[in-house]
Amino acid sequence: MTTDFLKEGERLDDLQRDGLKLIQNPRQFCFGMDAVLLSAFAEAKAEDKVLDLCSGNGVIPILMASKKKGRVITGLEIREDVVNMAERSILYNGLQEHISMKRGDVKTASLVFEPSSFDVITCNPPYMIANHGQQSKNEAVLTAKHEILCSLEDVLREAEKLCKPGGHFFMVHRPFRLAEILSKMAKYGLEPKRLRLVYPYADKEPNMVLIGGVRGGQPRVHVEKPLVVYEKEGKYTEEVYRLYE
Amino acid sequence: MTTDFLKEGERLDDLQRDGLKLIQNPRQFCFGMDAVLLSAFAEAKAEDKVLDLCSGNGVIPILMASKKKGRVITGLEIREDVVNMAERSILYNGLQEHISMKRGDVKTASLVFEPSSFDVITCNPPYMIANHGQQSKNEAVLTAKHEILCSLEDVLREAEKLCKPGGHFFMVHRPFRLAEILSKMAKYGLEPKRLRLVYPYADKEPNMVLIGGVRGGQPRVHVEKPLVVYEKEGKYTEEVYRLYE
Repeated sequence: MTTDFLKEGERLDDLQRDGLKLIQNPRQFCFGMDAVLLSAFAEAKAEDKVLDLCSGNGVIPILMASKKKGRVITGLEIREDVVNMAERSILYNGLQEHISMKRGDVKTASLVFEPSSFDVITCNPPYMIANHGQQSKNEAVLTAKHEILCSLEDVLREAEKLCKPGGHFFMVHRPFRLAEILSKMAKYGLEPKRLRLVYPYADKEPNMVLIGGVRGGQPRVHVEKPLVVYEKEGKYTEEVYRLYE
Repeated sequence: MTTDFLKEGERLDDLQRDGLKLIQNPRQFCFGMDAVLLSAFAEAKAEDKVLDLCSGNGVIPILMASKKKGRVITGLEIREDVVNMAERSILYNGLQEHISMKRGDVKTASLVFEPSSFDVITCNPPYMIANHGQQSKNEAVLTAKHEILCSLEDVLREAEKLCKPGGHFFMVHRPFRLAEILSKMAKYGLEPKRLRLVYPYADKEPNMVLIGGVRGGQPRVHVEKPLVVYEKEGKYTEEVYRLYE
């Protein structure tokens, strides 16, 4: 197989689903379990118009498209080189009829797209507060993990403007920010309706949280059964295996 | 054993801990797993001054005292007959040096006690929104389960006023109100710091949530490992068995 569509340092990774592949640069941010879980958790009808914020290498639009979640899926990403990489993945997988990438800034996303025009908005945002923890010297990694280029507040404010009334917002994030996430979703009119904690093992603390909100929904959140990733070291639980089917 | 300290309709229940007993009226609200879990989850030093809001039959002060959580524990309860019942349980268990009951309204609790005077505040409040769901015709049951006499907002507002800066607030509630709980705790300066979901079975939705906040704390919540109640029908998990030791 020719790989002349790959740039220096890039590799073609297997998404382990429907033969899908993803171009990634291992020196930059690579997709993880969070993207897989978010695309499984997010609900969208086959005819929906979907927007993915902080889209990166396009892994969420590609997984959503493969699950027939959305007819028209747009990924918004600020880095030109990453947009270009995502576009090549979309072409490689033959998904260009369903997915398009847009280069742009989440902070002003509502100036780029028509207001209240999306049925579903997804986001796997940077988790870490700007000045917290270890910061990578690699700019692509730094901006993917830390709130340098956009904050949770930016994501929620713009998502609310772009989501149709009654439309859905889905996000994956870290549990340590749960109080802030739920408060700010309510503040921005994306009322939290579904919440699922992801535990690496059944008896360990959760390391991810999946959240679904509805624009203008009534306050009442359905906390779902735990999502446990590993049955034992190196062996996924049945539920996680099924995500790859 | 004489039972002339019991009034008509009351019974003496075993708290299954240190030989403690609790007077309850089965036609009114009886304590449940929530009180046991809250008293285990709540942290208090042996010398702390503790306030229990919506104290009911005094089960939480009695369990806290038996765990040496607090030297002086006050229970605030609005119903005179329930205060009287709690006082008889306290006497029966010989805990009158540590626990006292106060008849009063949570809505104006900060007028009854000295502001910023408690190290720890606990609360097992009514879970249901006033006009939601099935409403009991028994007034004692109705007011214990529904927000008729006080709302979540009342509890948090008064707790913030009564808690010392840096002091702790612990509550058990229902997961469906999690977004509102976390938002309002932050709004009232009782920053959520600990959160634990209680799942009846490992693969079922949670039916309780334990929450700890710190007055004036920094935003960062520690979501703890799941608390699973039953291993199988009729058999508690090891962790829940240990709560009774």
